[in-house]
Order: sequence, then C-alpha cells, then structure tokens
Amino acid sequence: MNIGVLGTGMVGNTIGSALVKLGHSVKMGSRTKGNEKAIAWAAANGANASEGTFADAASFGTVLFNCTKGEGALDALHLAGAENLKDKILIDISNPLDFSKGMPPSLFVCNTDSLGEQIQRAFPQIKVVKTLNIVNCEVMVNAARSSANDRGTMFVSGDDAASKQTVIRDFLTPWGWDDVIDLGDITTARGTEMMLPVWVRTWGATGNGHFSFKIVR
Amino acid sequence: MNIGVLGTGMVGNTIGSALVKLGHSVKMGSRTKGNEKAIAWAAANGANASEGTFADAASFGTVLFNCTKGEGALDALHLAGAENLKDKILIDISNPLDFSKGMPPSLFVCNTDSLGEQIQRAFPQIKVVKTLNIVNCEVMVNAARSSANDRGTMFVSGDDAASKQTVIRDFLTPWGWDDVIDLGDITTARGTEMMLPVWVRTWGATGNGHFSFKIVR
Repeated sequence: MNIGVLGTGMVGNTIGSALVKLGHSVKMGSRTKGNEKAIAWAAANGANASEGTFADAASFGTVLFNCTKGEGALDALHLAGAENLKDKILIDISNPLDFSKGMPPSLFVCNTDSLGEQIQRAFPQIKVVKTLNIVNCEVMVNAARSSANDRGTMFVSGDDAASKQTVIRDFLTPWGWDDVIDLGDITTARGTEMMLPVWVRTWGATGNGHFSFKIVR
Repeated sequence: MNIGVLGTGMVGNTIGSALVKLGHSVKMGSRTKGNEKAIAWAAANGANASEGTFADAASFGTVLFNCTKGEGALDALHLAGAENLKDKILIDISNPLDFSKGMPPSLFVCNTDSLGEQIQRAFPQIKVVKTLNIVNCEVMVNAARSSANDRGTMFVSGDDAASKQTVIRDFLTPWGWDDVIDLGDITTARGTEMMLPVWVRTWGATGNGHFSFKIVR
C-alpha cells in the first residue's frame, strides 16, 4: 500500500526503510520538500521510496506513521493539512519528551492526558493508533532485536478497533510482535507514554537501549 | 531480623505473612493499637507476628516496609515518628494513586517528582528503597506467581547502594526475583511509579492482575 512517513529522523528512516522492505511504497514527509535527509533516505531505498512535504506524504499515504519528535507532532499534522488526513489511520509512535530541563527528559503531557489523545482531539477525522513508542526504533521493526530467544509485548491504543487490527496484521505481526495487548481506547496511551521514564532509566542503568517490555503472565 | 510493616491492608497482610515465613519477627503497625485487621493478621501468623501503632512497628523494626496506601504514606511516617525511623531502611512499595476522580486512577505526583522522593525528602534520616510497587502483592512475594516458566524483572531505586543490596539479598532474592535492575538514585522511582497506569490498563485488558514486567534483553 502507499504509506506516508512524517519525520526524517532516525525513527522515520528506520520505519520508512522497513516499510519499503515489506513491499510498500513510502513517501517521507518533512517541513519542506527537498530536505537533505529525506532525499538521502529516498535515494538509498529504491524506486518505492520518495520524499516531499508533510502534506505530500499525508496525501500519498492511505496509512501514515507519525515519526516526528513529540513536541513537533501537532505542528507537522497541521502542516499536513486536515483534508489530507481525513479517514486515514495514523500510527503514532511519538513520545511527549521534554528535554528543555536537561536529562533525563520529563514528559510535557502525562497522567490525565497524553500526546496520543491531543492528536486525536485535534484531528477527529483521523484514526489514531498509538503503538511502538515503548521501544528503540530498531526494535520497533524487529521484535527479535531485543533477544534471539525471547520476545517482548507490544501494546496498541486507539478508539477504532478495526484500525488497531489493521496495524497489528500489516505491521506489528510482520515485524515479529507476536504478543500484542489491545489496551483499549486512546486514553490508554497515557499508560504507554508514561513508560518512557522507566525506559530511559533502564537504558541508563544497563547501557542497552535494545530491550523490550514483556508482560509475563 | 525484626521488621515493621506499616499498613494493615491486603499488601501489608501479604508482605507481613511472607516475612514471617522467611523467619523474621514482624510487627504490623496501624494508626491505633488494637486495629481489628492487625489483630487478626497477628493471630493467624504465630508467635513471630505482633501488632501495634505505626510508632510501635517503626521502633520494633530494623527494616520497615511501607505498605500504606500512597495517599496515607507521609502521614503514617509522621505518626511513626522521626526518632523511630532514624537510620532504618524503608522499603517503599506504595504508589501515588489518586482515585478521587474515578477509575482508572491517576497519580497525585509524577513526572518531575515521585512519592518515593517525597518520603526521602521528608525523612532524610531513613534510607528509602523503592521496589515491588509494579506488581500485585501476591507476585511481590512470589515472582513465580506470574508464570511457572518465566520470570519478570524487578527494579530498585534509592540513594543508598548498600541498602539496595540488602533489600535484594534479604527479600527480593528469597521471593524469586532473580533479575533485578538497580535504576539508580531515588529520583528513578518516578519511572517505576509511572508504570502504574499501564499496569492498571493491562489488568483491565487481560483480566489478569498477576503479571509482571520483564525487560527482554
């Protein structure tokens, strides 16, 4: 299918390349057409990879991945344009990390709200599915990257049940996530976004960012 | 050793009984001596189980377990009395859950502070070790309760390295926690306390509260 990836950073790169490998046509979007990082990514990923503005990528994709930094997510979606987002699934893997007060980051929204909810409220015409935000991007697209012998759990949150099933079938399953828990509506994104502080501290304590969380049960 | 358990609820009961089984002498403390639940617990747990006020339990124990509800934790410690707490290890397993706005609960402190830090700041004479707060109390005292074939990870947070090692050796290890990550100082308790929202939602989604979190790596 045609997929728009919003964001040209490490997460957008990794997700975009993994989507091309799955056989999809992918357009990477950024603030301005001709972004150097987006051009380099497209050049490295063959005929099914292209680049353009956020609006170009949103218009192109039937499914969109939000790979922006959390603080830029709403801006990027406003630039993408409401008419280009209408009725599309937005897989939101961004986190509301606030680095302005130094390390480790805090969250600029949490507890009684979440970035996933902010996006869904601002753009009611899209179907937000929050997932993958609790692991490093290399683990996102390869669940086995954490361990050859064990597998973490992935969560999905969103108001539209069919969209969550699409995301599980078309992306999480091919990327090796065979234990997925549907937490419920988009308010449950508070829970997974609030895992970021322990993610950051676990990374700091172990020196290993390629871990995942498994619900042992 | 002599251990004081603060709190007479399900968590205090389960922790207290498990400590007696490990061979310790345990005094359960509550707001007033003669609390019915504390008397019943002591009667059910033999000669090494006794009850009294928060101050009695704190004075009795060389190690203390904070098993109060989060909202009552600081009050209980004030009632215990600074002189009874001096130089003791306080294993803080409480969570800052706020049920006042209905279910699911939010946290009354998070992100840039934590209940573990509030306790450490209010009582600098105690050595707070935050741990066990991310699982159901039956799992706290029996890591194998989640799964016969797999084991979750337990985190410890606290400013005093030796106290964390004592807690791991004397309690976490006997209770089956063979994968423990020391996250660092007490500020890292923000991370584990902020796991509560996803704990609550996972419980809701799966109908199973006897799970644990494993860091797959």
